[in-house]
Amino acid sequence: MQASTRITNILGGGSDGWDVFNKAREMIAAGTPVTELSIGEHDIRTAAPILQDMHRAAMAGHTGYASIPGVPALRDAVATRVQEQSGVATTRDNVLITPGGQSALYAAHFAVCDPGDTALYIDPFYATYPGTLRGVSAHPVAVQAHAQDAFQPRAEDIAAKAQGAKSLLVNSPNNPTGVVYTRATMEGIAQVCRDHDLWLVSDEVYDTQIWEGEHLSPRALPGMAERTLVVGSMSKSHAMTGSRIGWIVGPPEMIEGMINLATHTTYGVPGYIQDAALFALELGPTFEAEIAEPFRRRREIAHKVLSRQNAVSMVPADGAMYLMLDVRSTGMSGEDFAYALLEAHHIAVMPGESFGQAAGGHLRVAMTIEDSRFEQSLQTLCGFAESLIAKQ
Amino acid sequence: MQASTRITNILGGGSDGWDVFNKAREMIAAGTPVTELSIGEHDIRTAAPILQDMHRAAMAGHTGYASIPGVPALRDAVATRVQEQSGVATTRDNVLITPGGQSALYAAHFAVCDPGDTALYIDPFYATYPGTLRGVSAHPVAVQAHAQDAFQPRAEDIAAKAQGAKSLLVNSPNNPTGVVYTRATMEGIAQVCRDHDLWLVSDEVYDTQIWEGEHLSPRALPGMAERTLVVGSMSKSHAMTGSRIGWIVGPPEMIEGMINLATHTTYGVPGYIQDAALFALELGPTFEAEIAEPFRRRREIAHKVLSRQNAVSMVPADGAMYLMLDVRSTGMSGEDFAYALLEAHHIAVMPGESFGQAAGGHLRVAMTIEDSRFEQSLQTLCGFAESLIAKQ
Repeated sequence: MQASTRITNILGGGSDGWDVFNKAREMIAAGTPVTELSIGEHDIRTAAPILQDMHRAAMAGHTGYASIPGVPALRDAVATRVQEQSGVATTRDNVLITPGGQSALYAAHFAVCDPGDTALYIDPFYATYPGTLRGVSAHPVAVQAHAQDAFQPRAEDIAAKAQGAKSLLVNSPNNPTGVVYTRATMEGIAQVCRDHDLWLVSDEVYDTQIWEGEHLSPRALPGMAERTLVVGSMSKSHAMTGSRIGWIVGPPEMIEGMINLATHTTYGVPGYIQDAALFALELGPTFEAEIAEPFRRRREIAHKVLSRQNAVSMVPADGAMYLMLDVRSTGMSGEDFAYALLEAHHIAVMPGESFGQAAGGHLRVAMTIEDSRFEQSLQTLCGFAESLIAKQ
Repeated sequence: MQASTRITNILGGGSDGWDVFNKAREMIAAGTPVTELSIGEHDIRTAAPILQDMHRAAMAGHTGYASIPGVPALRDAVATRVQEQSGVATTRDNVLITPGGQSALYAAHFAVCDPGDTALYIDPFYATYPGTLRGVSAHPVAVQAHAQDAFQPRAEDIAAKAQGAKSLLVNSPNNPTGVVYTRATMEGIAQVCRDHDLWLVSDEVYDTQIWEGEHLSPRALPGMAERTLVVGSMSKSHAMTGSRIGWIVGPPEMIEGMINLATHTTYGVPGYIQDAALFALELGPTFEAEIAEPFRRRREIAHKVLSRQNAVSMVPADGAMYLMLDVRSTGMSGEDFAYALLEAHHIAVMPGESFGQAAGGHLRVAMTIEDSRFEQSLQTLCGFAESLIAKQ
C-alpha cells in the first residue's frame, strides 16, 4: 500500500543536512563522550514553581477538554504581552493558543496558502521550515541572505521572488544565525509584503533573547497588522520546550479559521499546561531575563575566546541561543569542518549547510552547555581551525 | 487579506448541526440550569495517581523536547497492548504517539490521501470527521448506515462508493450510535477494502467500553494489517481527555512518514504526559473497567427506564458512552424534538441530525451525568415523547 505523495515528499529528498548530528548521537549511544553544541534547548529544566502550578491545576480538576482556542485568561495574557511589547492593539480575539510554535507555523501557513501556492522563506533557515511549507502543500522558495550582510535579508532579493507568491516567513531573532533583524531590514520586508500583497508569518519565539539592538515585531509596522501572523512560544522564553505551548497572533477572522483547523487537528492544548503557562507569563520579565541570562553570559565568553585568534570569526550574535561561526579561512565546508571536529575532538556542532545554501562554510554553535565546558570547547574549536590553516 | 480557500472550507458551509448544543450553552451562561446529556466526556476527572505520576516525571526533569515518535517505553506499551488485544504482531515501529485521537485522525488521512482523493466515512459520524477529511484536502463521501440495520454499515453500500476512493474511516464502538460492529460487519468492510485497494482508518478510541459482544479490530482480519491505520487514545479509556494523548498503529513505513509529519506539525507530545500515560496503561484492565463502569451502569438504568414505555426505543447500545434513541414515533425530527425538550425541560441532548443524514429522528444521549439525575432525565425525556404522541 502506498503512502500519499505529499507525506513522502515532506522531507524534500536528499540529505537533510543532519548527518553530523546523527553521527554524534551514534557515538554517544556507543559510549563515546561527545560535547554537544548542537542542541537548541536550555541546559536547565522547566522551573519547579511552574511545574508545581501545573500540578495544582491538574489536581484541581483542569483535566477535561479545554477550550480549543485556549482558555480565556491565557489568551488575554498573551494579548496583553504582545500589545505591551509591540504597541499594536491586541485582544483575546487576536490569539490562538497552540501546542507549541511548530504547530503554530503549520497552522499559519495552512491558513494563508492553498496547495500549490508559493511560500517564501529566508535562507539560512530553521530546520523544519521547508518541510512545514511542503507539509501544507505549498511550493517553498528560499530567498538567500548573505554572509557579507551578516545574514540580514535584502528587500530586493525578496521582491525578486515575490511575484505571485502568497506568503513570506521570517524569523528574528534568528535561528541559526543569532542575528536580530534591524529596523531597516524589517521595514524593507514590510514594504515588499505590502507591494506584493504577501502574508507575513513572523516567527518570534526568541524574542526574549536580545543581546544587542532591539526586537521589532513587523506586525507593528504600518499596514502590517492585517497581513501578519506572529508565532510565539513558551519554549525558549520560559524553558518550557517539552510542554508544547505557543500561540499565533493575527487578525480575528484568521484566528477564527485557525480555531476551526485546531478543532480538526489538535483539539486544543491541555488545560493544566495552559494554566502553567499563564502562571509562567505572570512571573514577568525578571524571570524571562533569568532564563536568557546563561546565553548572554556565554556569548560574552565567546567574544573573549574569539578575540584571541584570527582563524574563526563570528557573525554578530545579537540574539537567540546560537552563534554562527565563519570557518571559511580553513578552506573547508562547514560540513567537512564539523565532521573533522567531531572525529578529532568529539565536539558536535551543526554545519551551516544544515540550514540551507546561504551559510556554507559556517558552523552553528548552540550555547547550551555549562560555561567552563563551553569556553573550553570553543577554544578547542578555534585551535582546531588554526591547525587546519597551518597545514594549508 | 484573504484566508486560504481550504481553511475557509473546513466546516463545509451550512449549519454544523450543533445549534441545540450552543443554545443549551447560552442558557447555562445566562443562569438557567440545564441538564447536559450532550457531552462526550466522563463526569469524573483524571485519577489523582496518574496526575501524581505526571508531576513526578516533570519534577524529575522530563520537561525538555521528548522523542517525536514517542518515548520508547510508551511505544512499547502501546504495541504490547494492541498485540494482546488484537493478536496482530505489533512492535514499537508500528506505533506513533500523538497529541490525542483527533491529531491521529488528521495524520492518518494526511498519510493516505493526497489532495482531491476521495475519502469514505460512515454516516452517522463523529462531528469532526468530514472536517478532518476536508482539512487534508480530501473529498469526503459519506456512506449511510441505516436505522433498520441498527446502524451496522452494509458492505454493498460501501462498495458502491469505493470505486476510485482512497480510504475508508470506520469507528467501532461507535460515536454517536453506541453500536459495536459485528464480526460480519467488519469482515464485509475488510473485503471491500481489499477488493478496492482502500486504506482503512479504524478509530477505536472506545475499545474499552464494550457492553455486549466484543471489540474486533479490523487490523486483525486477513490482509488488513498492511492497509489499516488504527487510531487509539487515552481519553475515553483512562479519563484523560484533556491530556491530549493517543496513537496511531500501522505499517512501519507509514509510521515513518507520520513521524516526519509530526516533526512539522506537533513536534511531539510532552514527555511528562507520555510518562503519565505509561503509568496509566500499567494500571491495567481493572482500572479501565472502573473508568467504563459508570456507563455500563447507566446503560442498565436506560434499559429499565425504556422498558416501561413505548414512545422511545433505543438502538442496541453495545458500547461507548452514548445511547441512540429513536423518537420517530413522535413524528418530529431529532432536532425539533431536542429543541422542544430543551425548552420544556431544560434537558440538552444531541439531535441525530448533528451526526449526518442517517440518524434523523434520533437523539444521542451521553451517559455522562450522575446516575439518579440520569435516570430522572431519561424518564422526563420518555414522558415528553409520550405527551407529544398523545397530542398527535
